Amino acid sequence: MPTLVLLRHGQSSWNLENRFTGWWDVSLTDKGIAEATAAGELLAAKGYDFDLAFTSVQTRAIKTLNLALEAMGRLWLPVVKDWQLNERHYGGLTGLNKAETAAIHGDAKVLEWRRSFDIPPPPLEAGSEYDLSADRRYAGLNVPVAESLKDTIARVLPYWDSAIAPELKSGKRVIIAAHGNSLRALVKHLSNIADDDIVHEEIPTGKPMVYELNDDLTEQRRFYL
Amino acid sequence: MPTLVLLRHGQSSWNLENRFTGWWDVSLTDKGIAEATAAGELLAAKGYDFDLAFTSVQTRAIKTLNLALEAMGRLWLPVVKDWQLNERHYGGLTGLNKAETAAIHGDAKVLEWRRSFDIPPPPLEAGSEYDLSADRRYAGLNVPVAESLKDTIARVLPYWDSAIAPELKSGKRVIIAAHGNSLRALVKHLSNIADDDIVHEEIPTGKPMVYELNDDLTEQRRFYL
Repeated sequence: MPTLVLLRHGQSSWNLENRFTGWWDVSLTDKGIAEATAAGELLAAKGYDFDLAFTSVQTRAIKTLNLALEAMGRLWLPVVKDWQLNERHYGGLTGLNKAETAAIHGDAKVLEWRRSFDIPPPPLEAGSEYDLSADRRYAGLNVPVAESLKDTIARVLPYWDSAIAPELKSGKRVIIAAHGNSLRALVKHLSNIADDDIVHEEIPTGKPMVYELNDDLTEQRRFYL
Repeated sequence: MPTLVLLRHGQSSWNLENRFTGWWDVSLTDKGIAEATAAGELLAAKGYDFDLAFTSVQTRAIKTLNLALEAMGRLWLPVVKDWQLNERHYGGLTGLNKAETAAIHGDAKVLEWRRSFDIPPPPLEAGSEYDLSADRRYAGLNVPVAESLKDTIARVLPYWDSAIAPELKSGKRVIIAAHGNSLRALVKHLSNIADDDIVHEEIPTGKPMVYELNDDLTEQRRFYL
């Protein structure tokens, strides 16, 4: 039975400050580091093991993966990093505290941006300090100025189909360390969740979610360790 | 001009205890962690940057690379891990303190094992606690029972030729985080050092060695940062 584990990164410095982060590259807090290590220890204690790991090109996810793999004695596993597993791009909200944003735009608007399926937040302004279009890691890519969850899904799923699913089908055990919304994209797909429901799926930081899959990679069951 | 940086892992727990380590998978000491981070900070401060990283499948080298890349803000770079960059396999000496080994075998013998080009140490005994032949990371590989420096070179150089050299020739900037003897193999090749001389080349832990190369990947100059 193909086994897949999804792991949302541990607490980041902007999770702690309750700021919209998106593609901005913040690191883990001490709590986030501890969460990542604990996730690896838990996976090892429960007998989970992997052949291959995927992550985004964002420090908080890569570091979470490295810490978990180290705790498992599996730092030597191959790791593939790809921007298509990045967090949803929060556009003009990037860097804003969620309470401040509500004070400016109103609670209803913020809730709409956070919880709607296909409404992107306002675009990142040109010249913003959070503009990553010149970042070398995104060379050759048209970096988005904002993404809805639907937009996020539209770049996560092609990567799932082309890069991850074939490895699971070939019998490899896979762990993916990524972000709240790139993991939502996968959960929506694997568990066949409706557009209106997936926006309410809260994936906690640092808690391994196990998928036991059928051979065609549909869900047999899923649970948190 | 192709640029290559070689980085020996930071101090490991068995470096500290002065024990023969070889393929045994020990981690870094706090000093080793600090050395790895300092190496990344130094590389960034001096304006070095990379497109691709290589390392062994041994924790101390991988962790050194990860810490250096994190200090450079480059944790997102692709990293390729391969056993062919592992440390020389010290066979039956694995786990022994160097002073104890000298007391048993005599100083002359220990010096011969450590400093000869083509004399391997005694083989690892079957059933040794340091036997890694069943370790999953070496599945499909005939794990050596001992290696001379010559044996180490014989598996490092084919990897250089097939995996690393083509990337440098294509214009990529490469960092290799590895081990005293796998790096000696590369230095011997790149700097055209004689068999009798390479055994005296001491590569310090955590100090980046820069190679500025001609287009045919012969040495133009090399220096420590």
